[in-house]
Amino acid sequence: MTFPYPRLLSFTIDIFRKIGCPDQDAHTAATALLSADLRGIDSHGVARLIGYVRLQEAGRANPRPDIRIIHQTPSTAVVDGDSGLGLVVAPFAMQLAIEKAEKVGTGWVSVQNSNHFGIAGYHALQAVKKDMIGIAMTNASALVAPTFSIERMLGTNPICVAVPAGEEPPFVADLATTTAANGKLEILQRKSEEAPLGWIQDKDGHPSTNPHELKTGGALLPLGGDRDHGSHKGYALGAIVDIFSAILSGANYGPWVPPFPAYVPMPTGMPGKGIGHFFGAMRIDAFRPADEFKFHMDKWIRRFRSATPAPGFEQVLIPGDPEREMEAERLANGIPLVPSVVDDLKGLAAKLGVEFPA
Amino acid sequence: MTFPYPRLLSFTIDIFRKIGCPDQDAHTAATALLSADLRGIDSHGVARLIGYVRLQEAGRANPRPDIRIIHQTPSTAVVDGDSGLGLVVAPFAMQLAIEKAEKVGTGWVSVQNSNHFGIAGYHALQAVKKDMIGIAMTNASALVAPTFSIERMLGTNPICVAVPAGEEPPFVADLATTTAANGKLEILQRKSEEAPLGWIQDKDGHPSTNPHELKTGGALLPLGGDRDHGSHKGYALGAIVDIFSAILSGANYGPWVPPFPAYVPMPTGMPGKGIGHFFGAMRIDAFRPADEFKFHMDKWIRRFRSATPAPGFEQVLIPGDPEREMEAERLANGIPLVPSVVDDLKGLAAKLGVEFPA
Repeated sequence: MTFPYPRLLSFTIDIFRKIGCPDQDAHTAATALLSADLRGIDSHGVARLIGYVRLQEAGRANPRPDIRIIHQTPSTAVVDGDSGLGLVVAPFAMQLAIEKAEKVGTGWVSVQNSNHFGIAGYHALQAVKKDMIGIAMTNASALVAPTFSIERMLGTNPICVAVPAGEEPPFVADLATTTAANGKLEILQRKSEEAPLGWIQDKDGHPSTNPHELKTGGALLPLGGDRDHGSHKGYALGAIVDIFSAILSGANYGPWVPPFPAYVPMPTGMPGKGIGHFFGAMRIDAFRPADEFKFHMDKWIRRFRSATPAPGFEQVLIPGDPEREMEAERLANGIPLVPSVVDDLKGLAAKLGVEFPA
Repeated sequence: MTFPYPRLLSFTIDIFRKIGCPDQDAHTAATALLSADLRGIDSHGVARLIGYVRLQEAGRANPRPDIRIIHQTPSTAVVDGDSGLGLVVAPFAMQLAIEKAEKVGTGWVSVQNSNHFGIAGYHALQAVKKDMIGIAMTNASALVAPTFSIERMLGTNPICVAVPAGEEPPFVADLATTTAANGKLEILQRKSEEAPLGWIQDKDGHPSTNPHELKTGGALLPLGGDRDHGSHKGYALGAIVDIFSAILSGANYGPWVPPFPAYVPMPTGMPGKGIGHFFGAMRIDAFRPADEFKFHMDKWIRRFRSATPAPGFEQVLIPGDPEREMEAERLANGIPLVPSVVDDLKGLAAKLGVEFPA
């Protein structure tokens, strides 16, 4: 079933209002959440709305947070999200990074005491609108085993870097630091298909193709898959995200990051507050005139697009191409939702007394 | 054959002096270069000294550069390296990033018109000495085919992030954005061994295990290896390094980055100047008190070291562990050099009239 974006947005705003979010926050959260559906990252969009509602019901997400700057310098800040929805806390922190960049060239904000923020790409792209490079990352609950281990120690810890261009669309690299994001496993589970080797290992550390492996103690693998193929690099990248997001801010890290599903018990001995994010904004003209930068960024993009394709492929893609095309298509033709998600949304609508679709 | 570090350092300083570097620059360049040998990245150390000399002889490296800041804001700068050795230009730029971080919390410096800078780790670690997180990256001549292509468009474009800890040694992730760095192929070539699948492809884009493949039009593969295993992420990371190092600064990018071997012709239609680097320094106490940060960084490191190992492995490593252990060992027992490198150095010594070893 397919739903027009405006109706799904309006519905999502209604739900966030019903759980106690102020109007402006409900709009902010819904826009951030649905950007995932528009960009084709279905696992992180409205399918998770029920998860956010459950976090609020369990007292793990605060619908009326007092988001505060607890430390700052001209180019940095640490923000306390007061257990708010990451979908609201992250836009606040990204906006702060942008304001600092306007004044001193760059802005860098680490966030504690937050929750899941949707897709990193949405936040990084806010900087692109201001002729800045945008950077967004977040830690997440542990599903990934570091190289040489069978223990889940890191989340899929995504990094997004978004770069403005001139006539060409922006470059948007938005990547989990694992071989494959968890959402890809969910797709295989639904289709009863096997995963390629290099995505997951079983509880004993053996390579596995079973997409259900995480339910029995298995783990996702860092980008690279195994040591011979550079998994120590994926592990290092996930670790950098964890350190920037949580050790700089005072959030939880490693195996102590709180889980998204409200029914999963919280880790014991948590060393920080909530989950952590990290945002950066770099003003292009803090380095060189924006028109010069954009001229060369266009040239970069066009040269890469025209690189000789391998047999069987049409052309080299620029990071962000597939998501941008998906966004255009879904804005025009609506957002498809699988039946189980539609059922969840209908259930939410009935329970909270709103119309679905709006 | 094994050589004590001080004698190899003294010899390398002599060589840089002989090609026209001022005393201070010769010392800076030699220290940066030999940090690779100390840390076990033999491909990037004194084995390349003859390559740097050839760049100077070919007029591609300026031994007495006028390194200048051509644009700046409180937290950013662009540096023109005046075709100097990257081994001299990079320390200047990293120092500038550190000074900006001292004043406004963070400093970010993009560099044009430089040459190869040795290992990224050496430069990033300069910030760690000042209780800052250090970041260093550089582009390099094209050896890597983006996902879906057979054309070499990117260098191995390394990223280093170095983070201070308290009682524990620093976290130092220093990684090429390819499955395997080119130096690893050189080792296999010397041993006449095959490479694992996922490191390289042949000129037609087929997977290959032949470590000589690059000589006949093949390419290194981005971290991930192929699309199913996330090579689009490695490609995106290499692209980010290229953009930060060269599009922000005005250096050459993509297939136009000048090659290190002086006998390889320069690309035609070059859009910028020299090769590009990017450096960052973030003062820890621009985010939170350094002692708090270090307490949690120590806890992070200890928790990851104690993660349950997979069968057959002793323990999880922290990024930087192998290089630090190698450095201690080689400072104590000397730096081993293969015969072909010793021959090169003897040849240099004879030609330039210095003693080898010093």
